[in-house]
Amino acid sequence: MTRIMTGNLSRTILVRAEELGTKLRQRGWHVGTAESCTGGLVSAAFTDVSGASDWFWGTIVSYANEVKMGVLGVSEQTMIDHGAVSEPVVMQMAEGACKTLGVDLAVSLSGIAGPTGGTADKPVGTVWIGTHSPDGTVAKCFHFDGDRTSVRQQSVLAAIDMLHSCLK
Amino acid sequence: MTRIMTGNLSRTILVRAEELGTKLRQRGWHVGTAESCTGGLVSAAFTDVSGASDWFWGTIVSYANEVKMGVLGVSEQTMIDHGAVSEPVVMQMAEGACKTLGVDLAVSLSGIAGPTGGTADKPVGTVWIGTHSPDGTVAKCFHFDGDRTSVRQQSVLAAIDMLHSCLK
Repeated sequence: MTRIMTGNLSRTILVRAEELGTKLRQRGWHVGTAESCTGGLVSAAFTDVSGASDWFWGTIVSYANEVKMGVLGVSEQTMIDHGAVSEPVVMQMAEGACKTLGVDLAVSLSGIAGPTGGTADKPVGTVWIGTHSPDGTVAKCFHFDGDRTSVRQQSVLAAIDMLHSCLK
Repeated sequence: MTRIMTGNLSRTILVRAEELGTKLRQRGWHVGTAESCTGGLVSAAFTDVSGASDWFWGTIVSYANEVKMGVLGVSEQTMIDHGAVSEPVVMQMAEGACKTLGVDLAVSLSGIAGPTGGTADKPVGTVWIGTHSPDGTVAKCFHFDGDRTSVRQQSVLAAIDMLHSCLK
């Protein structure tokens, strides 16, 4: 993914969030988020948009694995087998967010924003993002460059773009 | 409350969040948040701090009243009698966050960040903030000046300050 300047990225995030809200309002769908490495930044971006309460219902930030399992219903065995930053975990997070929050569409994120926590297999900047909608569950792996703030911001934008893909 | 410049406020929030993390780590407590008008900004501030996973477990953003009731356990009758922006609602949100997230300490926020949504009784800038800990539940009402961004940022700082008060 092309590295974008932080200031421009903030503006792009707001515009894309507004566009998402327009589409969701037209479809009559409510969206929710399940966040880990972004810590609520997708949710905060949505609630920057005036009138977001028409289409945004809520978020679960599951920074602790206990919250991923206890509130989002991620299986302990999946966490043990694949780790928290993995395809099956973000898929279960997105499905759990739809169920727990009572929304039609959810996005989930689990990644390594850095500066610590990276491994050879999963270096800093590795972020799994999942979506769940009535059409099914999708997950993608991203590798972002930059510092913690930049990785988190790029993750927010990628999450919003994946939600747009669910509304095509 | 004295109006503080937005840039300085961001810096103050990070410093106060770091100080809170140090205290929580010493006490061995985990914290969670239940947010409405701030939409995850308290959570995002905590996860800006390196090593936050030692003391921050998670968040429930309950932008929709359905999430306040369904996930945080706020009583429908309380919502009807007092409205979402009220002392009993933030108290129930903080208590519900501790229970749902499995944390020792939680802060909750419900307010009117504007530009719309204000009434004569509860003008834009009215924000109720609650905390729940083993020592009990506390709630305070704040009246912040400024635009949506400024009201939300001042709310984040006030929430962190109320958590500090629980750790004296």
